[in-house]
Amino acid sequence: MEFDVTHALPFLPENWLSSRLEGLTNARSLLETGRGLGGSFTGWVRFPETYDRKELERLIQTARIIREQSQVLVVIGIGGSYLGARAVLELLTSPNYNLLCRDRPQIFFTGNTLSSDALSELLEYVEDRSFSVLVISKSGTTLEPSVAFLLFRQLLEKKYGRVKARDRIFAITDRHDGALRALADQEGYATFSIPPSIGGRYSVLTAAGLLPLAAAKLDPEELLSGAADAMVRLRTPGQDNPAWQYAAARNALYEGGKTIELLACYEPAFRCFGEWWKQLFGESEGKEGRGLFPASVEFTTDLHSLGQYIQEGERDIFETVVRFAIPAASCPLDPKEDDQLDFLRGKDLRHVNEQARKGTVLAHVAGGVPNLLLTVRERSAYWVGQMLYFFEYACGLSGYLLGLNPFNQPGVEAYKKNMFALLGKPGYEGHLSTPQPPSL
Amino acid sequence: MEFDVTHALPFLPENWLSSRLEGLTNARSLLETGRGLGGSFTGWVRFPETYDRKELERLIQTARIIREQSQVLVVIGIGGSYLGARAVLELLTSPNYNLLCRDRPQIFFTGNTLSSDALSELLEYVEDRSFSVLVISKSGTTLEPSVAFLLFRQLLEKKYGRVKARDRIFAITDRHDGALRALADQEGYATFSIPPSIGGRYSVLTAAGLLPLAAAKLDPEELLSGAADAMVRLRTPGQDNPAWQYAAARNALYEGGKTIELLACYEPAFRCFGEWWKQLFGESEGKEGRGLFPASVEFTTDLHSLGQYIQEGERDIFETVVRFAIPAASCPLDPKEDDQLDFLRGKDLRHVNEQARKGTVLAHVAGGVPNLLLTVRERSAYWVGQMLYFFEYACGLSGYLLGLNPFNQPGVEAYKKNMFALLGKPGYEGHLSTPQPPSL
Repeated sequence: MEFDVTHALPFLPENWLSSRLEGLTNARSLLETGRGLGGSFTGWVRFPETYDRKELERLIQTARIIREQSQVLVVIGIGGSYLGARAVLELLTSPNYNLLCRDRPQIFFTGNTLSSDALSELLEYVEDRSFSVLVISKSGTTLEPSVAFLLFRQLLEKKYGRVKARDRIFAITDRHDGALRALADQEGYATFSIPPSIGGRYSVLTAAGLLPLAAAKLDPEELLSGAADAMVRLRTPGQDNPAWQYAAARNALYEGGKTIELLACYEPAFRCFGEWWKQLFGESEGKEGRGLFPASVEFTTDLHSLGQYIQEGERDIFETVVRFAIPAASCPLDPKEDDQLDFLRGKDLRHVNEQARKGTVLAHVAGGVPNLLLTVRERSAYWVGQMLYFFEYACGLSGYLLGLNPFNQPGVEAYKKNMFALLGKPGYEGHLSTPQPPSL
Repeated sequence: MEFDVTHALPFLPENWLSSRLEGLTNARSLLETGRGLGGSFTGWVRFPETYDRKELERLIQTARIIREQSQVLVVIGIGGSYLGARAVLELLTSPNYNLLCRDRPQIFFTGNTLSSDALSELLEYVEDRSFSVLVISKSGTTLEPSVAFLLFRQLLEKKYGRVKARDRIFAITDRHDGALRALADQEGYATFSIPPSIGGRYSVLTAAGLLPLAAAKLDPEELLSGAADAMVRLRTPGQDNPAWQYAAARNALYEGGKTIELLACYEPAFRCFGEWWKQLFGESEGKEGRGLFPASVEFTTDLHSLGQYIQEGERDIFETVVRFAIPAASCPLDPKEDDQLDFLRGKDLRHVNEQARKGTVLAHVAGGVPNLLLTVRERSAYWVGQMLYFFEYACGLSGYLLGLNPFNQPGVEAYKKNMFALLGKPGYEGHLSTPQPPSL
């Protein structure tokens, strides 16, 4: 992995990095010691070397059982309980995974919506197929996954009977506490746990991410191995640490008046990774009236939608581009005369896509948009593991540079409280936000 | 359709609408007469009543031919040449259309990327299936669709022979000019045209949107009928015109310091509609260093990713929510004791989703985020036609309120010029943007 700030330098003060070395040293120390704000949620920092290897073996065996008994795996979870798994699944296979999966189960991510249309569609789809359910929820009381679990459990019990349904339900939850843990123990579901020191958006390398990925025959050990190597590198302090550079550059751009960070990639398979990244940074930094607004784009696709805005709109944007140095597929171009593409003859599409990226950098920098570049070797489990850890670690540093707690999300409760009050959930009487606008 | 500004009023000056009536009256007149900036691209304004009915019949017949001869329809187009069709397809069927389509062809949208991985995957997928190609490009020289068309045409010719391949290629392009028109005439492809007075992002109700949708058995006449009814209503001036209200409110919020507009919906099927909307507004307004940055979210899903930021991050956001008054599916909830969801007993999920929306409004307004609400009756072709026209018309008004040309996109050329120069396309020598940063 290489991080390149060259195309942001024209927009940065000379001391963008040197002036932040003290802050970064401090942030690093807070991550190491767990003595910073939210420090009890820094279990992810050393997880790639501290994880339980026996549990991982059991996870891989469980994934095999899921595969053998299921045409479809229904993964129930919201936020950090699905974004990481979905991001890595699509990035390492395809956004069309469910059409192409062949000898692997289709995987649907639900429990992240209250749409009756979306849930009804999936319930109907799985009814005639063999399926298993993996429910991921630390507390077991978040409404979206609870409702979905209610519906899919009822369907499993109707289809297989209560006893056999138990063999098709897998739960990832807290080791000891919460409603889901109690139910899982009562019913005897196979369970895995998320360490209490790891919050949802940092949990992709725990069972929450690894079990669905292993069910799709992706290799958890490769992901963890990449993360472990990134960990060793990124915990080493210094100006050439790519996570330090990224955290410092975005912090300096934010201080300089940029308020939106656009994550871009030239691979359509990256789209959901952008969604994972948006939660990671948005939830970690968007508090106390501060934080970069995280948005993502797919290039060159969105150069024909948001491209105009990026080139000439409000100048409050910078871009972070993820580039895979080695695309998987070669695609040589052999235009005929009537294609009017002579200048592409003998070129490979990989080369064309890379020139599009380079041309876009030149255009956007000239238009006033700083460009940061992360180069990742290839779309493989090992390198994606490195990248996951890179963003998590840089996010921890970034949050501490801002003086924030990067590990809480107090604002997420606000809509829940209002919703529960409106739904008449006991204990939420009088929890409507005020000032209450005139009418709903 | 109803537009509700109630939950933005605490953030708006009293005269937010009255002070803009003159500007809106003027903007309306510019759209009517085509005498404003970019006025030669206002053909979409009256298109729902001026379109050629015979051409529409031919289009519906052509869609039937495509359906009968194809397991897969490959739609090649970028920006406005795919976003509208994809948005409406997913909204009226499902994001899982390609898994559920049964007696309709699968539809893949490509020609919007230069990723060799993405193109190779699709080429391999269609190789063993009967397929047709619909290429949509006004000029025929945009690189992404040209390259995709080159590849899929070669595959068609290899699979069916050059002569039979011609019956599987359909082109939507300019009536007279351009490289694709010349090729289509030479080869004898069935063609449809986009009126020269309608730009890409306003073209969803032309053949560009309607042919792929008709291939999926969606009803073009219903879409146009909804748009026609919306046209009649929205061209009627006055304070109670919902497009006037939307254009005025977002203009006032922008003037008041909001720089990001978040389009939100509580239906996952709406996601691609958000992408269409982002192009529409981003390309129309993102110029001269101005314009609201358009972003979209899927709720309640993203309340567990961007929700924290929306609730407590920088206070430069407002939300526009699209609500469908009548969800298609009923989903009654019958929790058992161990589900710990007693408060939902006897309720329908539709009701729960609506309470989530109401609770979110209360939470976000209390957190300092103005909320605009568009209520659309249901997810049907007629009502989606109304909604498409609503956003197009409001966008035209908005651009003129800002004093901009809402119908050009000069900034989109910048990356193309640099890319063509890097690829050595004749005529682009010396077109690299300067100042050229040190190294690429």
